[in-house]
Amino acid sequence: MTTTTASHSPTPVTVLGLGAMGSAIARTFLDRGHPVTVWNRTAEKAAPLAEAGAATAETAAEAAAASPLVVVCLLDHEAVDAVLADVGGAVGGKVLVNLTSDSPAQARTTERWAAEHGAEYIDGGIMADPPDLGTSHAHFSFSGSRAAFEAHEPTLMELGNGTYYGEDAGLASVEFMAQVGTAYELLLGFLHTLRLVKLEGADPAEFADRVADSIAASYPPLLRGIGKAVRDGEFPPDMGPLSVQAALMDDLIDHRRANGVDAARMVEVKRLMDRRIADGHGDEGFSGLFPLLGEGS
Amino acid sequence: MTTTTASHSPTPVTVLGLGAMGSAIARTFLDRGHPVTVWNRTAEKAAPLAEAGAATAETAAEAAAASPLVVVCLLDHEAVDAVLADVGGAVGGKVLVNLTSDSPAQARTTERWAAEHGAEYIDGGIMADPPDLGTSHAHFSFSGSRAAFEAHEPTLMELGNGTYYGEDAGLASVEFMAQVGTAYELLLGFLHTLRLVKLEGADPAEFADRVADSIAASYPPLLRGIGKAVRDGEFPPDMGPLSVQAALMDDLIDHRRANGVDAARMVEVKRLMDRRIADGHGDEGFSGLFPLLGEGS
Ligand SMILES: NC(=O)c1ccc[n+]([C@@H]2O[C@H](COP(=O)([O-])OP(=O)(O)OC[C@H]3O[C@@H](n4cnc5c(N)ncnc54)[C@H](OP(=O)(O)O)[C@@H]3O)[C@@H](O)[C@H]2O)c1
Ligand SMILES: NC(=O)c1ccc[n+]([C@@H]2O[C@H](COP(=O)([O-])OP(=O)(O)OC[C@H]3O[C@@H](n4cnc5c(N)ncnc54)[C@H](OP(=O)(O)O)[C@@H]3O)[C@@H](O)[C@H]2O)c1
Repeated sequence: MTTTTASHSPTPVTVLGLGAMGSAIARTFLDRGHPVTVWNRTAEKAAPLAEAGAATAETAAEAAAASPLVVVCLLDHEAVDAVLADVGGAVGGKVLVNLTSDSPAQARTTERWAAEHGAEYIDGGIMADPPDLGTSHAHFSFSGSRAAFEAHEPTLMELGNGTYYGEDAGLASVEFMAQVGTAYELLLGFLHTLRLVKLEGADPAEFADRVADSIAASYPPLLRGIGKAVRDGEFPPDMGPLSVQAALMDDLIDHRRANGVDAARMVEVKRLMDRRIADGHGDEGFSGLFPLLGEGS
Repeated sequence: MTTTTASHSPTPVTVLGLGAMGSAIARTFLDRGHPVTVWNRTAEKAAPLAEAGAATAETAAEAAAASPLVVVCLLDHEAVDAVLADVGGAVGGKVLVNLTSDSPAQARTTERWAAEHGAEYIDGGIMADPPDLGTSHAHFSFSGSRAAFEAHEPTLMELGNGTYYGEDAGLASVEFMAQVGTAYELLLGFLHTLRLVKLEGADPAEFADRVADSIAASYPPLLRGIGKAVRDGEFPPDMGPLSVQAALMDDLIDHRRANGVDAARMVEVKRLMDRRIADGHGDEGFSGLFPLLGEGS
């Protein structure tokens, strides 16, 4: 490990938005010794942070003016729009880091707003629970101004494990949206399956424990293999060949329907498998369904 | 480790069905020193096993007659029906273990057939790839005759990591169907998400690597928490409260639709979140959607 000979004092940081996540961000920076200025629409939420040493500001603009690094973490893009309208030119010459969950298009819109107001812009996505902030379990995606990111990388990395995806401000959100989308696909499917398990008389918590174990052990290589297959356009057998996998789908669907449990994804899997097999690709794995996506049914 | 003083010679085993999985089963038993008799509809598939020391039989009935433990692993329930019709009374007095993927109802049907033909019955599901057989990475679910399972547990456990779920022959399939269903929910959602990632210009293999890492690290506790919530009927915040999670859903849906990527599950998640919040449960976590499932839309 190398250290610079001149020791730098921690960058002053402003945090706009003190919900569960904004408060955790402000507290992490305070814990690491940064001078922190905070603002929240509902002012009371600043009290615990003020007690812990944060400066409070009357307005968002006043807060933004107080630090070279301005971090925004609000409910959604509409809230960001509303607060930035009040901030206005106060961000001139500063670096604006927007950690509010947003879409790639919204990130690019906020970047334009920042440019028009003389600020450099970094967009970010948070894949973490507030208590994990400041630990390696908190994952952040960043994109936007590379110069600004490099200048403030040590400060931003205090929040957790961060990855920079490039100059296009939308890229952090591409990653965030895809990670969150993957999570909801799994979680809603899992919830429907828990219902099936419960209706069949098994213990949902014990089933969840077993899925958690197998998720940790056998899904990572499977997912890596599918990602590689999609990139390379070659689809080797994964959970057996499609011809064997497909033989099971009718039973899976019937079992769910007999219990009145959602079978939508299973029906879609079967339809895609049948088409891929009919096209002569029964020896491929599950990843072989990829080329059929987006063709409509 | 304790060993019994009298050493037992390995139980003779018959394997009916020598596809990828049946062959791996037969080979595992051969490797562990069992006398193995094999049969397959297409006789050539027995050749490599015969070379490795297996006895081959002309008919399924002849094969079944050769061993006290008869393991069946065929494509599907229809194949099992066809082969057992030929086996008939040859399984009398034996233990029939059916490792073919089937539904709970099919397992119970085969159990009745076994009882009518004087055999004890064990149903099983295989959650493994053929090369994993004989290792702890191969997971098996078993159910059916407890006496038969206990008698042959050491032999069956040579195939991998097995769990016995109870006397109802359908229970192994309940577990198998739920595990496989969970996998397909995740995998199809993941495939749609890889398409989104690719359309947005990111590398699907690198995205898959990141998902694999986060799946291993952060999903197991999340899934355990949801399973427990469903069991207990109490739904604490998991990935934040529903009120915060829901604020993101329109952006997620719009982002997918703008790219022409499937948004079906995201639309369902949003609909359920909106209903749960309207019912006054915005402070719950994702698991709070559970009570709404199966109510129709
Ligand atoms: N919580 C998590 O586990 C988690 C995880 C990953 C990402 N995130 C993301 O982090 C961001 C913040 O989430 P959170 O958990 O902190 O949410 P939260 O606890 O509900 O806080 C929401 C914040 O937004 C402010 N706000 C909402 N509408 C506003 C408006 N029109 N004008 C001004 N301020 C407004 C609220 O101010 P008031 O106090 O005045 O209402 C509050 O500061 C979200 O984008 C969320 O998706 C959260
Ligand atoms: N492969 C995997 O990764 C995997 C993973 C988990 C579970 N499983 C399950 O294991 C079972 C076997 O899969 P596999 O991979 O071995 O499939 P496979 O390689 O396609 O072999 C299918 C077997 O079924 C036989 N068969 C099919 N229809 C028949 C009929 N009407 N009468 C008699 N025999 C018939 C085939 O005989 P012929 O040789 O004469 O065609 C062959 O022995 C399936 O239930 C599958 O779901 C497989």
